[in-house]
Amino acid sequence: MSEIAWLAVDWGTSNLRVWAIDTSGQPLDQRQSKAGMATLTPEGFEPALLNAAGDWAEGPTTVVACGMVGARQGWVEAPYTPVPCAPLPAALTPATTSSDSLTVHIVAGLCQTNPADVMRGEETQIAGFLALNPKWDGVICLPGTHTKWAHVSAGEVVSFQTFMTGDLFAALSQHTVLRHSVADTGWDEAAFLTALDDALSRPDRLAARLFSLRAEDLLANLTPETARARLSGALLGAELAAAKPYWLGQQLAVIGAGKVAEVYVQALGTQGAPAILVDNDAATLAGLKAAYASLKGAV
Amino acid sequence: MSEIAWLAVDWGTSNLRVWAIDTSGQPLDQRQSKAGMATLTPEGFEPALLNAAGDWAEGPTTVVACGMVGARQGWVEAPYTPVPCAPLPAALTPATTSSDSLTVHIVAGLCQTNPADVMRGEETQIAGFLALNPKWDGVICLPGTHTKWAHVSAGEVVSFQTFMTGDLFAALSQHTVLRHSVADTGWDEAAFLTALDDALSRPDRLAARLFSLRAEDLLANLTPETARARLSGALLGAELAAAKPYWLGQQLAVIGAGKVAEVYVQALGTQGAPAILVDNDAATLAGLKAAYASLKGAV
Repeated sequence: MSEIAWLAVDWGTSNLRVWAIDTSGQPLDQRQSKAGMATLTPEGFEPALLNAAGDWAEGPTTVVACGMVGARQGWVEAPYTPVPCAPLPAALTPATTSSDSLTVHIVAGLCQTNPADVMRGEETQIAGFLALNPKWDGVICLPGTHTKWAHVSAGEVVSFQTFMTGDLFAALSQHTVLRHSVADTGWDEAAFLTALDDALSRPDRLAARLFSLRAEDLLANLTPETARARLSGALLGAELAAAKPYWLGQQLAVIGAGKVAEVYVQALGTQGAPAILVDNDAATLAGLKAAYASLKGAV
Repeated sequence: MSEIAWLAVDWGTSNLRVWAIDTSGQPLDQRQSKAGMATLTPEGFEPALLNAAGDWAEGPTTVVACGMVGARQGWVEAPYTPVPCAPLPAALTPATTSSDSLTVHIVAGLCQTNPADVMRGEETQIAGFLALNPKWDGVICLPGTHTKWAHVSAGEVVSFQTFMTGDLFAALSQHTVLRHSVADTGWDEAAFLTALDDALSRPDRLAARLFSLRAEDLLANLTPETARARLSGALLGAELAAAKPYWLGQQLAVIGAGKVAEVYVQALGTQGAPAILVDNDAATLAGLKAAYASLKGAV
């Protein structure tokens, strides 16, 4: 195995992922654990990292980490930088460790004053995308529990907006009366596209659409899979309608993975807005590599 | 104490309320329990009723009940009648009891085919309102976890629509990231009115507003009470925007109780749509009395 030069860490609310990076900047291997920020007290971060990294952290080790690890409830707060700014505008924030052989640097998030918004982790993916695609201008969509839309120009994040569509979908399908009518899995492509189109053409009617999923279950045997696809289409359509100033007439990239990212690309496509799909992990790693390079430059 | 002629029962998802009614149709007293439909199997309804009614049900007893007790998961299913129809269009559905001295009759709900919708319990309140206000035409709003808007004309429910605004508010404030930023109690009147007005003028932007409550908490020390009022205003504004065909230019009544009903009346007032506020229990009792009268007429 090649020599490990440093460890790249993506540390979110629910997961911790560690990559061993070689001296040429290539990832050698990945390890992960469920020790997300939400499960840890400030004292718990170092042991959780050492536990996940295992023998990778036995000698002198440099770690660059992004994500919720830098939140107020994280290992150490890496304060937000206000946009407009480059995606990695600030010096990395060092985290306190109990050992001189372990050095941990945390990437700062971005904020926006008006309308108020924050991101933490996505700035690293945007930096990675720009490292892989220099001089790219346009809008980057980062689907997730809290999807971000970021306008990028001349190497800076100009503005961004968060839509909590994934969080809303989960709350509606698990914690309202719709839980009786919406499946956890399954799909109905035609129902999704119809609901998406309907929501995009009449986004003001979102509030009126939700209960019909329950009523059609009771009256017309709407299947839970179709209800799931319709709820997804209605919420994504509402997001796309409200995010229109971001994507209309712009060069577009979706950074994500799996079905969710594909659904965003597909939905944008129905609106005549083609987007390139960029792999989540590739963007994260390229961003952490850029952060590591900035660290070396600063030393 | 005057003689008890019959028992009026409002049996919802979470609560059971029983009134003793005298021979002139006046309520003598009320008893209640937490034995709502959601807590009971079909065999559990009779004991729950007898337990709540106590000595009121010791002799030969006639009961008229409305609400979720007549749902598919209730004591016995009282099938929905499709609108347009009178609010109490169908013969009451008898429930099986273990004793000849106890006779239970259940009020049917209403349904609508397109757009699909259902109500169960509110039809009794509408019937009660019309019994108290004969020849009234207009739109009745019944705020609750699932608020109903019903267009009433010539003694019939012409159409209706459900908005799950209360359910949505609870899910968002308890089961999404907003739970960290939205208080369980407290209010900010100015913030509510601003959010209401904003939502009514740009209802298509609902999806874009939600995360800002979290971001302003992190960046600008938004108080949880103000966040609560803003979330309430945003969701109610979205409902009123989508319900506009119901309330615009109509004679309006809100049947409800407490702060929630007042908020609907206030919000409609800001749109130049004055509504009379009608007490929930008065409407329910008048409706159950009308149902009891129909039973006597049918015998």
